[in-house]
Amino acid sequence: MKIVEGAYVLFFYQANKNWLTRIEKGKKLHTHIGIIDFDQILGLEYGSSVITAKQKKVYVMKPTIYDFVMKSDRKTQIVYPKDLGYIAIRTGLKSGSNVLEIGTGSASLTTFFASLVGSSGHVFTYDVNEQFMEIARKNLKKSGVEKNVSMFKHDITKEEVELSDIDIAIIDLGDPWNVLHIVYKYLKNSGSVAVICPTMNQLEKTSKHLNEVGFIDIESTELMIRNIEAREGKTRPSMRMIGHTTYLLFGRKIV
Amino acid sequence: MKIVEGAYVLFFYQANKNWLTRIEKGKKLHTHIGIIDFDQILGLEYGSSVITAKQKKVYVMKPTIYDFVMKSDRKTQIVYPKDLGYIAIRTGLKSGSNVLEIGTGSASLTTFFASLVGSSGHVFTYDVNEQFMEIARKNLKKSGVEKNVSMFKHDITKEEVELSDIDIAIIDLGDPWNVLHIVYKYLKNSGSVAVICPTMNQLEKTSKHLNEVGFIDIESTELMIRNIEAREGKTRPSMRMIGHTTYLLFGRKIV
Amino acid sequence: MKIVEGAYVLFFYQANKNWLTRIEKGKKLHTHIGIIDFDQILGLEYGSSVITAKQKKVYVMKPTIYDFVMKSDRKTQIVYPKDLGYIAIRTGLKSGSNVLEIGTGSASLTTFFASLVGSSGHVFTYDVNEQFMEIARKNLKKSGVEKNVSMFKHDITKEEVELSDIDIAIIDLGDPWNVLHIVYKYLKNSGSVAVICPTMNQLEKTSKHLNEVGFIDIESTELMIRNIEAREGKTRPSMRMIGHTTYLLFGRKIV
Amino acid sequence: MKIVEGAYVLFFYQANKNWLTRIEKGKKLHTHIGIIDFDQILGLEYGSSVITAKQKKVYVMKPTIYDFVMKSDRKTQIVYPKDLGYIAIRTGLKSGSNVLEIGTGSASLTTFFASLVGSSGHVFTYDVNEQFMEIARKNLKKSGVEKNVSMFKHDITKEEVELSDIDIAIIDLGDPWNVLHIVYKYLKNSGSVAVICPTMNQLEKTSKHLNEVGFIDIESTELMIRNIEAREGKTRPSMRMIGHTTYLLFGRKIV
Repeated sequence: MKIVEGAYVLFFYQANKNWLTRIEKGKKLHTHIGIIDFDQILGLEYGSSVITAKQKKVYVMKPTIYDFVMKSDRKTQIVYPKDLGYIAIRTGLKSGSNVLEIGTGSASLTTFFASLVGSSGHVFTYDVNEQFMEIARKNLKKSGVEKNVSMFKHDITKEEVELSDIDIAIIDLGDPWNVLHIVYKYLKNSGSVAVICPTMNQLEKTSKHLNEVGFIDIESTELMIRNIEAREGKTRPSMRMIGHTTYLLFGRKIV
Repeated sequence: MKIVEGAYVLFFYQANKNWLTRIEKGKKLHTHIGIIDFDQILGLEYGSSVITAKQKKVYVMKPTIYDFVMKSDRKTQIVYPKDLGYIAIRTGLKSGSNVLEIGTGSASLTTFFASLVGSSGHVFTYDVNEQFMEIARKNLKKSGVEKNVSMFKHDITKEEVELSDIDIAIIDLGDPWNVLHIVYKYLKNSGSVAVICPTMNQLEKTSKHLNEVGFIDIESTELMIRNIEAREGKTRPSMRMIGHTTYLLFGRKIV
Repeated sequence: MKIVEGAYVLFFYQANKNWLTRIEKGKKLHTHIGIIDFDQILGLEYGSSVITAKQKKVYVMKPTIYDFVMKSDRKTQIVYPKDLGYIAIRTGLKSGSNVLEIGTGSASLTTFFASLVGSSGHVFTYDVNEQFMEIARKNLKKSGVEKNVSMFKHDITKEEVELSDIDIAIIDLGDPWNVLHIVYKYLKNSGSVAVICPTMNQLEKTSKHLNEVGFIDIESTELMIRNIEAREGKTRPSMRMIGHTTYLLFGRKIV
Repeated sequence: MKIVEGAYVLFFYQANKNWLTRIEKGKKLHTHIGIIDFDQILGLEYGSSVITAKQKKVYVMKPTIYDFVMKSDRKTQIVYPKDLGYIAIRTGLKSGSNVLEIGTGSASLTTFFASLVGSSGHVFTYDVNEQFMEIARKNLKKSGVEKNVSMFKHDITKEEVELSDIDIAIIDLGDPWNVLHIVYKYLKNSGSVAVICPTMNQLEKTSKHLNEVGFIDIESTELMIRNIEAREGKTRPSMRMIGHTTYLLFGRKIV
């Protein structure tokens, strides 16, 4: 598969030195390891390498959803891959699922979920902050999944919307307990809810309300991820690690 | 949505007391919290509750892929949800992806990935153990995703197969280093590979070979998951935790 | 060093199969790996092995404070070694320190700290539950450190005691915030306090009060310990792990 | 207790902004939160506060062994507090113990252990790097525990030394397996050994040799520590965490 005008590529030099950018004729990327001329890139096969002006070898990779999420523009905390992956499996997400998201934020979850539900499913996402939504829209467009998403500037707690048969609902707000009854209404019987709770206090309060509103199988969890430096004869875990992103809370709707 | 003859349901009493079973007219489920009569279940809405013969309330939920994975029959170690979710996002899996899996095992990964790639994608999975494949076939059928899967009893290291344009390859074998050059051949340029490595030694050896065969962005990682017992005024992590399932190793193919 | 009448020994067969017991002439230990006759043991060097009636080889080790803590009788949750060790170093405990403990419990912390302060230091420990104190007394006696400990049945929140120049105070109660002002009074200027907080809620509340009462360098932390199964060619972390014991909270007294 | 000429103090402003220094008449400490004049400090009670030239309040604390370890000069990786504490308890260290350390490094372990064994015990420590030993000597002197330590520049693998009745041996070398038979010789029967193994490969190899040389109760472990930000209504783990320091390996000598 060859790289064409307007395509996004991931220039990969090292784990912490890589750049996601759109290829346009006549443009260049300036990096500390040297300039990369885009006219050199056009027509190349993905997975090829180029040499920068400073004689460094850089690989030109086809970006995946993971890259779009990790390189997304953001004004809010994103939901991290370790959490996104677990939310997907724990809620039973699959190709064709209909998802309601309250709190689009920078659309990291929206992007990943939209890529998975495919054209036979859909993600309906709501936010009230126009500035965040502008960024979210750009992130979705870049990653090429915007056709599977409908984004609304709307306070779903204030006014009802036309929605039904939602398989999975995701809540990413500061006060998730205030929208549980709304989520309950739009969700299919037996459908799953996932709540992003950065603090223990949100977790405790939302967990209690989940039970009261009509959810079972309530589970709170946290995921930790640690890289391993696998080098022959001196393999050990990485000294750098992220200590916390968020707690996750799950439930399933009962009649 | 109503429960019909032949449907699978999850009878949910508590986090560690729930049963995944197929509803057949005239049958019953015997549990230590009482007998459940299936004739009572037919025609109910998912998310309803029934009372067992011992007067316990049990919810009748629609099982998700998560449930099918967790309740799968197995003769081998399964890949756990925390790892499945991360493999999906880290490899860039999406609706429509073509996946090659070497080592079907009990088909937990096969099931999850098949549910996500949908009918526009496909999972090609290879194993050599007929006994495992029998179980894998049953697990796939139960979860309703078998149409997105082609399973082969074939030693891919011994004889070539007809495969191309694979977006993602997954290796779940004791000696993953021996199949890296094969995976390389079928994988698209810039495509992703993920390797299941339960031991540090497999991780070290496979990581080295990945680099030699022609992969970059090689990352080794491990995920830890811990439940939180969120109870008002006495919230704390669970005292029980699984210490290790497997390490995960990732790479991307270069030309 | 030879084993004499009345000595404690650790019979070590395997990591999870070992027994701490007192050697008395004419007695025997009955285990599922066979009977051990104590008359065989008397006069042996520590570190020797004996053969049980079922032909299993068992090592006769000299128990350390670690063994006395792990094998202590208990009616309460003990403080675990990973936490004990960190409390010792984080509070600056050393040979000669004077320690105040509120909440003796089963005396696991008392035992370890008493073994470290030596005869030039002392541990003053308070509890109100006679039943727990009875057990604590036995545990201290067994481990041979009781001379470095003074234990009182006394509610220190109700009535003052004669104490001064305390270097380190440890609180292990359900409502630690209620004794912070008392601990403050007996503690040397610049002295350290450590609080055992099993729940997040205790941690949050105590942390706030610590600051108000007159402590700085307030730090909350948790330790996780995971065993590694180091076997040639197949080294990996243990699948079993304890997910949580307690949070720890530290501070230092200001004038 | 008042601060006198020549005393060490910890100037504490915040968790990551504090300074360990020796008070000398007429000197000053220059920090980015303002200059602190030592003449102001002399005669103050520990735990008092002073105001810097930039009007910031700084507490003057009596440094503990923890502070001396964390602020030690170093040319080598130190052993961290979480590991030091666990080594102490797991080996059964107590007031009066005799300790052999092979590999002094920057003396973080030497310092902590010397503070615990007290004047009735002793730490014998060996290194071959004169440059490290110079730093180690300074660190020990600062912390005031040098009287409990004998440090030797000597390659214990090449020539025997006069040592006996060692309760606990600690190995902190790149090739620990090469000194196990030496450690075995000096150690009391039933005595404990602890080995610092930063990599999985060291752990695997040393574990195997420990067993062959004559040790039982061989345990490999790792400790993880995570801070909690306990703030009313928004308590959560810290986002920053150290992912790895070292694995620890333990054993006990058999006859």
